[in-house]
Parts: sequence; C-alpha cells; structure tokens
Amino acid sequence: MSHPKPRPFTIDQLHAYLVEIFPQVWKSGDLRIEGLAPMAATVRLVHNPRHLRYGGTVAGPAMFALCDVALYVAILGEVGRVAHAVTTSVSINFLLKPAPADLIGKARLIKLGKRLAVGEVELYSDGTSDMVAHAVGTYSIPARGDDAPS
Amino acid sequence: MSHPKPRPFTIDQLHAYLVEIFPQVWKSGDLRIEGLAPMAATVRLVHNPRHLRYGGTVAGPAMFALCDVALYVAILGEVGRVAHAVTTSVSINFLLKPAPADLIGKARLIKLGKRLAVGEVELYSDGTSDMVAHAVGTYSIPARGDDAPS
Amino acid sequence: MSHPKPRPFTIDQLHAYLVEIFPQVWKSGDLRIEGLAPMAATVRLVHNPRHLRYGGTVAGPAMFALCDVALYVAILGEVGRVAHAVTTSVSINFLLKPAPADLIGKARLIKLGKRLAVGEVELYSDGTSDMVAHAVGTYSIPARGDDAPS
Amino acid sequence: MSHPKPRPFTIDQLHAYLVEIFPQVWKSGDLRIEGLAPMAATVRLVHNPRHLRYGGTVAGPAMFALCDVALYVAILGEVGRVAHAVTTSVSINFLLKPAPADLIGKARLIKLGKRLAVGEVELYSDGTSDMVAHAVGTYSIPARGDDAPS
Repeated sequence: MSHPKPRPFTIDQLHAYLVEIFPQVWKSGDLRIEGLAPMAATVRLVHNPRHLRYGGTVAGPAMFALCDVALYVAILGEVGRVAHAVTTSVSINFLLKPAPADLIGKARLIKLGKRLAVGEVELYSDGTSDMVAHAVGTYSIPARGDDAPS
Repeated sequence: MSHPKPRPFTIDQLHAYLVEIFPQVWKSGDLRIEGLAPMAATVRLVHNPRHLRYGGTVAGPAMFALCDVALYVAILGEVGRVAHAVTTSVSINFLLKPAPADLIGKARLIKLGKRLAVGEVELYSDGTSDMVAHAVGTYSIPARGDDAPS
Repeated sequence: MSHPKPRPFTIDQLHAYLVEIFPQVWKSGDLRIEGLAPMAATVRLVHNPRHLRYGGTVAGPAMFALCDVALYVAILGEVGRVAHAVTTSVSINFLLKPAPADLIGKARLIKLGKRLAVGEVELYSDGTSDMVAHAVGTYSIPARGDDAPS
Repeated sequence: MSHPKPRPFTIDQLHAYLVEIFPQVWKSGDLRIEGLAPMAATVRLVHNPRHLRYGGTVAGPAMFALCDVALYVAILGEVGRVAHAVTTSVSINFLLKPAPADLIGKARLIKLGKRLAVGEVELYSDGTSDMVAHAVGTYSIPARGDDAPS
C-alpha cells in the first residue's frame, strides 16, 4: 500500500475535528492522540478515578471506549471527515487487570474498504509492556463527503 | 435447572450492594435493575445526553457498558456477593442506531460454572421491539466468599 | 414480525438446493435440516468419527461448521436462492466438551436486513439439554436474484 | 520476554506429535508447519477442492480450522505436550474471498498464562499480501504433564 496522496489530517487538525464533532468525549482532555500513521493511530486515555472499578483497576467499559476511539481515529486519519462512521462490531479480550494509570491504545487497520473498515487495538497500561486488552472492531463508513459538517 | 435454594438478593438488596461496591457507576441513578430471575436480569440505562454521539444516537461505549452491567447483575443475582467477578471477553454487534431514549438490557446466562460464566444480552431502545445491539460476554468468577467486602 | 408471504422453501426443497450448490458439504448426508421456521432453522450434524478430536470429543472446527451452516440455512429459509450469501464474522464460545454423538444446531436470526443478516446459534449434543457451544455470526447477502443458479 | 530455556519441539518433532495425537487431521499432509518461533507459528493449508465453497472460494470452516490449528501449534510450540489444550472461544472476521489456493496462517500468542492462552491469527492466500481472514482465539491449557500420551 503506497500513500503518495497527502494525509487528510495532522494530529492537531484531527484533534480539533474530534472536539468539534464529539465535544462530550474529546473536550475534557482525557483523550489524546499520540500518534497517527498510515493505517494506524495511538490514543492515550489519561487516568481518572472515574474510570476505576471495584478493586482499583480500570473498568472494562473505559477500556472498550478507548479501543473504539483508537480505531475511529485510525479510520479518520486515513479517510478524512467521516464523522458518521459507526462501529458495527467489537470483540474484546481483557487480558490483565490494568494498574490505575493512563492507558495507551494502539490501533492498526487490517482492512480499509470503501464502506467497511476492520482493525485491531492493543491496550497497554502506561509504562508497561504487557498488553492489558486486545480488541478487533469493524466499522461502517458512509460514502465520503456525505457527512462532513459544513 | 431447578432453583430450590433461596435467591441471594432481592432487586433492592442487589441495587444497594452495587451502590456500595460501584458507587461511581450506580450512585447516579442512571442504571436501574428492572428484573431479576433465574439466570437472567434486566437493566435500564436512563437516557442522558452525555451518552449520545454524533448524529444524536447513543454511543457504542454506553451500549457496551449496559451489556457488561446487565451480565454482571445476572451473575450476582445467581451467585451472590462476588464483587471481584471480572469480564474476560465481550463480542458485541451493533444492529441499529438507537433513538435518544432509555436503553433496556436483557441478560441471560447460558453457562454458569464455578469459575466461569457466559451470557448474552439483548439491547432494546425503550418502547421499541427491534434489537439495537447484541452481546455475548464471559466472566471469571472468583472463589465464592473470597471478596465479599466486610 | 408478520410473514403473510409464502415461505421460499420447504425443508425438502431447501435440502435439494443445498445439495445442488454445495455438493461437497451436503451430499454425504452428514447434515440434515430438522426444522425451518420464520427467522430460524435447526440443523443436525450426524456423528462421524472423522469429526472427533483428541480425547474423543467433537472437534471445534466441526462445531464451527455446524453453526455456520445452521445460520446459512436460516437465511436461505427466509430469503430464498441466495447461494452467494457469505459469512463475514463469527464469534463462538465453546462451553462443554460434547460427547461423541450427533450435534444439533439451533439458529435464530436477530437481524435480517437487505444486505446483512445477524444470527445466533445454540449447539447441543443430541439428547442433552446443556449447550455445548454458542455462536453469533454475520452474513453479507447479495442483491436478490444476482446469483440464483439457472 | 526472554527464552533461554530450550524449545520443546523442532518443527519435525511437533509435526510427528500432531500426527500421533490428531491423525485424522494431520496424517493427510494437508497441513504443514512452516515456521515455529517464540510465541508464534506459521501453518500452511494445502489447497484441496474439498475446501471450496460455492463460487470457487475457500469455505469459512476451512479457514476457521486453519486459524484454530495455527494457534494450537503456537501453544504447543511454547508449552510442549499438552494435547488436551482446548479452544474456548474464537472470533473470526472474513475479509476477502480467497482464491482457490494454499492458505497461510500466521499465529501469534498475545498472552500465555499457566492455564489460558490468547492469540491472533492472520490468514493469507499463498502468494498474496492481502489478509483474507483474521481471528482471535482463547485456549484453556491443562496443568502441564496431565495429558502427555505415554
């Protein structure tokens, strides 16, 4: 896969777009795009006691949300302003109880068709090398240009 | 499956236990146990604009969280005070974009072993008969008595 | 769900169609359609030592194949001659080691759109009430009429 | 992850062990171990018309079986003679219709605990670089030494 065409977003541009279309998720600053590359993105979920569950570990839904967001960022990083891309399925395995720390989600697209994307995400606790969760998700992508907010 | 033994919780008792062990999730009143039966539970997620995503539909992570919670409630409703039960995997299919309304999660356990539970959840938008999401989850259950908060 | 329209197949007609389009799978007689109902189908995999694995239990791939086939039968039972319908994803949980006996797959469609179907399958060992496996699958359905063998 | 300890099998030794414990699967020669590395294995499914489905493409169950086998080989390559290791779940996404050719399954373990392994598999059509399927599986591993055939 060659990518001679210009990338649709820099990290800052994509972050600004996400704050615009998902203010309830991106305005708080809990999520940060740490990397954007062809077919890949890295997103950090800043630690917040609100994400914890019984036993002091990060709750499953917070980990799911980070996987979902990391794949969405990877897709937008390839395709551009497709706010309406929606998750159609996710399979997630929780591997280790993460420490109460930042989580890093590393997403990689394994298929990017015109209307469908499939990707996987590895989740790490910041500063450790053991994967805490692994997810595979599929996204439905609307026809391009359909839904760019003007 | 016969259940001659007394059920570990009434709905009110289980709700009180959940508020005690997961105050950050259950204290707000957004979640309500609507039914508890052998191997099954129904949980309502009260509509809140915070759960929406771009396009006015309920966000995937909010739907995932309800599935996860409904299975957890079904397990506790069978097994009792096992706060440390943890999700080990979830596969979720998003079927329809739900309206901005309450969501109803109907969980049913399909296997309940000593250390492992498997269940499925059907998600509905309140007042409609079309399923908006379907999930299958597995839980690891600690040895009973291990983790009841004293 | 009302079904005033005539059903596309009787069990015998659907079996004949499957032998025609998938002779390598259906001609041996190992698979039998036991029931066909709106949005549902029951398929039997006749016991064959070839399906066993180490330890005398039915191999995972044989169980997967039955889940896949049962969903396919349920879809064709609704939609008619869409031989090109293809599985796009399956999540399967293996719950118990089945005895070396016939397996019964009970498929139920939970969504049937124009181009996509989602269904679940419960697998039982013949004569027992404990589920041995549970699967959720998604299928892509070609535009109708596209692929009926003439 | 350091692996100073001797590897339990060479490729030939592992192949011989698989023929011994799963003759119905490994004796035909359709499956070949092409690579064995720490936490990883590559297995080839030799093309056979029997694996095809309507439309001339490889059937889903044949692809599932290769994913399952490749993970099993990766686990045995790490752990040794644990014939009784059993698949507990698999989520598979079918990405492209493969050509009627050999399939290559590249398995990588992402967690290897004492009793549980989790891994992913990428499936390719021989000679092409596009992934045709992607699976994530979990295995239950018996206590070591329990089940080595004497």
